[in-house]
Amino acid sequence: MYDIGEERVNKVKKVFRQYMDWIQNSVFEGNLTESELKEIKNNLTTIMDKSYDSVIFFKLRSENAMNKEIMGQEINPTDRII
Amino acid sequence: MYDIGEERVNKVKKVFRQYMDWIQNSVFEGNLTESELKEIKNNLTTIMDKSYDSVIFFKLRSENAMNKEIMGQEINPTDRII
Repeated sequence: MYDIGEERVNKVKKVFRQYMDWIQNSVFEGNLTESELKEIKNNLTTIMDKSYDSVIFFKLRSENAMNKEIMGQEINPTDRII
Repeated sequence: MYDIGEERVNKVKKVFRQYMDWIQNSVFEGNLTESELKEIKNNLTTIMDKSYDSVIFFKLRSENAMNKEIMGQEINPTDRII
């Protein structure tokens, strides 16, 4: 999930979209290999203003390690293309 | 994590703050019992506009189930009081 200055947020979203699904406002989710994660981080390094922006990766040990529960609106797959 | 209409977002944050730490723009994190989670959800039900708002709970089976990695700015504990 990210918290990125407006000037840079589209670039960051573009990077994430290559590897993950957009699941909420500032949250992407995906199944990444270590090397894909590395690629994302390398890309982010060139885009982010580290004195302002923030990205948090939650890395799960397995898919079963987590349970997701949604209240309210769910982003539907057709929205994800945007 | 939440994506809530501006008119309601402060109420929702107030609920979360009672139980969790604010870790990023629209993300809270905390160790909750099942009954605390139920309280939060009951509170949210009265506040949220379910046709617009969205809250996602990621429930981890154990603390070890997840690894957190932060790039850029980290919210420091003094900011959390706001």
